[in-house]
Amino acid sequence: MSLLVVGSVALDSVETPTEKRDDVLGGSAVFFSYAASYFTPVQLVGVVGEDWPGEHTKLLQAQGIDTAGLTIEKGEKTFRWRGKYLPNMNDRETLEVHLNVFEKFNPVLPAAYRASKYVFLANGSPVLQMKVLDQVPQAVLKVADTMDLWINIQRDELMQLLKRLDGLVLNDSEAKLLTGDENLVRAGHKVRELGPKFVIIKKGEHGAMFFSRDETYVMPAYPTPRVVDPTGAGDSFAGGMMGYLAERDSWNPQTLKAALAYGIVVASFNVEDFSLERMKVIGRPELNQRMQDYKRMLSF
Amino acid sequence: MSLLVVGSVALDSVETPTEKRDDVLGGSAVFFSYAASYFTPVQLVGVVGEDWPGEHTKLLQAQGIDTAGLTIEKGEKTFRWRGKYLPNMNDRETLEVHLNVFEKFNPVLPAAYRASKYVFLANGSPVLQMKVLDQVPQAVLKVADTMDLWINIQRDELMQLLKRLDGLVLNDSEAKLLTGDENLVRAGHKVRELGPKFVIIKKGEHGAMFFSRDETYVMPAYPTPRVVDPTGAGDSFAGGMMGYLAERDSWNPQTLKAALAYGIVVASFNVEDFSLERMKVIGRPELNQRMQDYKRMLSF
Repeated sequence: MSLLVVGSVALDSVETPTEKRDDVLGGSAVFFSYAASYFTPVQLVGVVGEDWPGEHTKLLQAQGIDTAGLTIEKGEKTFRWRGKYLPNMNDRETLEVHLNVFEKFNPVLPAAYRASKYVFLANGSPVLQMKVLDQVPQAVLKVADTMDLWINIQRDELMQLLKRLDGLVLNDSEAKLLTGDENLVRAGHKVRELGPKFVIIKKGEHGAMFFSRDETYVMPAYPTPRVVDPTGAGDSFAGGMMGYLAERDSWNPQTLKAALAYGIVVASFNVEDFSLERMKVIGRPELNQRMQDYKRMLSF
Repeated sequence: MSLLVVGSVALDSVETPTEKRDDVLGGSAVFFSYAASYFTPVQLVGVVGEDWPGEHTKLLQAQGIDTAGLTIEKGEKTFRWRGKYLPNMNDRETLEVHLNVFEKFNPVLPAAYRASKYVFLANGSPVLQMKVLDQVPQAVLKVADTMDLWINIQRDELMQLLKRLDGLVLNDSEAKLLTGDENLVRAGHKVRELGPKFVIIKKGEHGAMFFSRDETYVMPAYPTPRVVDPTGAGDSFAGGMMGYLAERDSWNPQTLKAALAYGIVVASFNVEDFSLERMKVIGRPELNQRMQDYKRMLSF
């Protein structure tokens, strides 16, 4: 079953305590697509400027990602982000953001995408995310990510969006901000009571928590000793998860739990190098192998 | 198999964002003993002052804890600690510490304790911890906790201690301090290379990590929505773990992993009320029930 993602496509500049990279391939929809592409065909909707290197599009296409929804705007520049990781590699500072063409992003889905069943709304305002939902009337699973920015400046719109979602993915700090509750177990359920059937709280190096009406659980991150660049970890987690759900064409509780585990495993590879460098050199066999390690780690 | 613990016995004053308690039963050896007592007989070695309420000793004895090693020093006062939890309930400030009688603590084991096979060295200096090791020549499992204080002021002595241990339990921040490595996976193995056959890094609300020559794994905390007072969480974790190992009279890899899970489950109860209040009203059936939930949570 194919999977639609709408979100940012960017050129990232990343500084870590030991290395730096300039203008590398990034953006929420890119990390998501690549992570999901191990499992299922992906349709990507995003926008870039004239400065967008064609090789990036080719890289995505080579992985089976449909880029018919990736618009190149003449006379515009691609979204650029520059950030710096603190020594703990979990916290970061944003040094520069140039929204450029992403500021006016108004996703109009290609006709072929409008029958999408599995839909992920990556980084974007709740207003924009709702416009996408209007275009996918046949979706059977609608999941969104959100950000502190939207919680702060578009809370009402976010509340409307939440009522239309099956699932929401957000960070621990965002869950606390949205609910005012410092206990993540309570915060997760409070977010769920705002609308989504399930809520996933991402905890970075500490893994992820899942909340539905009937279930509450925590899954730790896969303990990789090689954390080079955490950029895109949350998006590749979501991509691995949604990709697996679309592949299985199901989101029952058992499938969701396995999907979370796959998301965790894909994200653990993603952080092992800059941009998509690590994901580019692995495939399903490496994912399955690490999945077996992860399963064994949690068995006793 | 009985289990020996040597550590602090204290009267704690605790402030949380919503409540406070003064002079309640606390101390590393107390939380440890009570947690371990669900599994195995415990021998406690510690020291208190004349102000020590006899009811506390009776409470421990009623749980099958042997207090022959708990010395009451005339003319002295019991160790007192006062702390305040931040709204996240994971970080805390120490407001007051009065070591009192604990400052001169020089544990001399009762003759009957010297044949101990399972030994836990709770809060105390490495010098003191090594003095205890000298008195338990037949120990088959020697595990210690340590603190940032000792890493800072008795590093050489700590290094000597590490070479004599089977296992070390420490916090995430302490593992980083001891090794200078911000990646916990690498830090855990670096600590292990200093001597102990296994190392356990406690991550508070995020669970615990285990490191041996052949294994690296992470286990999340049990997600309780009711975090009232985290004091003693680390000690009750260690108590549950060591208690289970002593009960099984084994510390092979499979038993160690189940023991970690039991430690996590006991600690999750401990944080649900002040002092020993929550642990006092549960027993093995409640632990086993939550253990089943925890196992189910990690199965997919």
